[in-house]
Amino acid sequence: MTTPAAPGPQGYGDTPPDHGSELHALQDHFAELDIVTIGEELGRMDRVERASAFRLLPKDRALDVFEDLDVPLQHELIEELRGAATAEIFIALDPDDRATMLEELPAGIVAQLLSGLSRHERDMTTDLLGYPARSIGRRMTPEVVHIPANATVGQALARVRAQGHDAETIYVLPVVGEGRKVVGVVSLRRLFLTPDDVRVGDVASEPVMVMARDDQEDAARVVRDNGMIAVPVVDDEERLLGILTVDDAMRILAQEEAEDAARTGATAPLGRPYLSVGPFALVKARVGWLLILVAAATLTVNVLNHFEDALDEVVALALFVPLLIGTGGNAGSQAATTIVRALGMGEIRTSDFLRVFFREMSTGALLGVTLATVGLLPAALFVGWPMAAVVAVTVVAICILATSVGSLIPMVARWAGVDPAVVSAPFISTVVDATGLIVYFLVAQAILGI
Amino acid sequence: MTTPAAPGPQGYGDTPPDHGSELHALQDHFAELDIVTIGEELGRMDRVERASAFRLLPKDRALDVFEDLDVPLQHELIEELRGAATAEIFIALDPDDRATMLEELPAGIVAQLLSGLSRHERDMTTDLLGYPARSIGRRMTPEVVHIPANATVGQALARVRAQGHDAETIYVLPVVGEGRKVVGVVSLRRLFLTPDDVRVGDVASEPVMVMARDDQEDAARVVRDNGMIAVPVVDDEERLLGILTVDDAMRILAQEEAEDAARTGATAPLGRPYLSVGPFALVKARVGWLLILVAAATLTVNVLNHFEDALDEVVALALFVPLLIGTGGNAGSQAATTIVRALGMGEIRTSDFLRVFFREMSTGALLGVTLATVGLLPAALFVGWPMAAVVAVTVVAICILATSVGSLIPMVARWAGVDPAVVSAPFISTVVDATGLIVYFLVAQAILGI
Repeated sequence: MTTPAAPGPQGYGDTPPDHGSELHALQDHFAELDIVTIGEELGRMDRVERASAFRLLPKDRALDVFEDLDVPLQHELIEELRGAATAEIFIALDPDDRATMLEELPAGIVAQLLSGLSRHERDMTTDLLGYPARSIGRRMTPEVVHIPANATVGQALARVRAQGHDAETIYVLPVVGEGRKVVGVVSLRRLFLTPDDVRVGDVASEPVMVMARDDQEDAARVVRDNGMIAVPVVDDEERLLGILTVDDAMRILAQEEAEDAARTGATAPLGRPYLSVGPFALVKARVGWLLILVAAATLTVNVLNHFEDALDEVVALALFVPLLIGTGGNAGSQAATTIVRALGMGEIRTSDFLRVFFREMSTGALLGVTLATVGLLPAALFVGWPMAAVVAVTVVAICILATSVGSLIPMVARWAGVDPAVVSAPFISTVVDATGLIVYFLVAQAILGI
Repeated sequence: MTTPAAPGPQGYGDTPPDHGSELHALQDHFAELDIVTIGEELGRMDRVERASAFRLLPKDRALDVFEDLDVPLQHELIEELRGAATAEIFIALDPDDRATMLEELPAGIVAQLLSGLSRHERDMTTDLLGYPARSIGRRMTPEVVHIPANATVGQALARVRAQGHDAETIYVLPVVGEGRKVVGVVSLRRLFLTPDDVRVGDVASEPVMVMARDDQEDAARVVRDNGMIAVPVVDDEERLLGILTVDDAMRILAQEEAEDAARTGATAPLGRPYLSVGPFALVKARVGWLLILVAAATLTVNVLNHFEDALDEVVALALFVPLLIGTGGNAGSQAATTIVRALGMGEIRTSDFLRVFFREMSTGALLGVTLATVGLLPAALFVGWPMAAVVAVTVVAICILATSVGSLIPMVARWAGVDPAVVSAPFISTVVDATGLIVYFLVAQAILGI
């Protein structure tokens, strides 16, 4: 009984314009009315208007208004909320507008709205639910068998047998109390190995849950880190909305992992198998970052230009430029990789800032001293002691600089709300290149007296 | 009934020496005897000798010999195979020796050997099983409920109820025929929603299985890619050995992902939370690769030294060194990241070598031409047309070089059996640095006539 593309009477044209201001006005208008009056006004609207107007109500009022409607009107409203016409009105909105106007729907209505839809129909509808992009509310499955807390194990098993055919999983069963509120979770295994007359509430365990607004990657990590088969998805009041199963969680993590790996190498994720995309698509995925990095690298030209006299006087200085900045880039990549990972795993937070910074600085110093010690003698044999001293001192300074920058930038990115993986290793190398060169020439001027 | 550190009479000292040659001699000796004689000889040995001698038998003979032994001797043998004393003899062996001497144990004996052991005891025993390091045979759980193919659904459910308490999972049930051979898989869900009198063989699906010798990461991917809750682990004859559950699969993938991420940044995986390790541990994880990279980077010093006259004549050449090699490094990292990922995901194989190589070369050419076009005019204003032409031509050449090398090296690594992730982006940058410099100076000599 779904209307995938309900034609119905509607007050809007075929190509939906941006209804932002109209909808805002309607929302303000409703804010001044009581529940009963809103119900009456909804009754006078056509189907599409009614659905979009209803969708504008704040969550708590929406539930009251819905319950106050006549049952046929309730059915019509749910049907229309699933339809393409209503969805289009909101999809055409500015995303920020959409986020401020649409609170999440009450759990009971979400359940009715999503039940029995195909995956495609569901995808169409998720824009109306009010969950942000990349939130788990958009990836969860609404087909979940829930067990009332006061049922017996026997009743619960009968319920699973009756409803299990359509459910995504029957191995993890949310136990709900008043108003779909999740009070526990019980596994089919537990039910299956427990005598029939025990009360489900007595064998259920404390629920681990995720919120529909949670980021999909965080939710998937909850499944992985707890070794779960599925996790219930709830709204802000812990009412059951759906379930996230481990296979979907693994798929989400694999996808996020692929994106992070691509970003670390300063390319956009392809999102498709390598051989299925042509060179132009590869160029498109890479050229943006490459241009940014080249622009940043012009700094190195300026730095070298500034020190042209020194270069002119001691040409040997040029010999070590690639080695020194390469080493800086590598030490910076190492630090950045470690810190991005530790941030991603939640091993460090932005409040650990100073601790991490000093730890990386001392690591950089130790690495620099090691490299300088190992390399000093060969360098001296090759270019003489004064120049070797310049290189050795610079290596220590550049390693400290690189590990500091390599740890600092991802932490600042996280603090600013940017995914640290985007601040890729190549970006850090480029920053270290320019600053490392300055250090190099200042050290050279000091030691060689040029 | 386990003997974790069986003292028992044994013919070897406390610190086990390498018994390689002795054991080889014993293996050769057994090869000439028939089953019955071997059984008799085993009967005359002490416990530890008997267990190690038995472990040396080839798989097919081991099963026959075992079945020919008296039941008390069978029990004593299984008990001793679990014991520390026997394990130590084989652990002390050279790993290559161990791999050639120990075939995998017959499935029936593996099941007896592992059943009822704690995880710690099991870890101790896995060295004796004959599965290679990092194989799934060492990570699987032997506690699995299997269903005979000719059982009814009712009998199967009763069996799950009776044996399920100790099993790792009861949601995926391998269906076995003659001699533990896996002929299908049935989910508890399927059993639960099917009438009791149906034969299990009729509702089981074609089994997806992994071999105990399979790499643990590959096996975990099978679970993820098929959206499974668990996968049966079988021996070379498809006999049931154990099961890999999705939580363990996710743990394996997370661990491998962490290791790959670390290697991509040219550091060794820490294996522990970041804040729990000190700077010395961080240095230890990084200094090895950094030293290798510095050693490789000395090539750049040699290249520049070789072209010192050109540098002397046109100091402006030095200005673009960091920019050009940096761009090469970035383009190489992009290509390497994409190819390592595509190899890891099985999107490309080493046989796609030429296709990938030419695709990356054309991508590099397109990227280079884009960068050269965008950058030519600003460069010309800064250093004049001849020098700008040198830079533009070099950028194109370096981009082609970088994408070729960046795709080539991971493919060669895979072909040579090395994990492509180990051939980290910094390594590729360093290779491109030196060759890119040569290209740069050759182009400069040609265009500027120096």
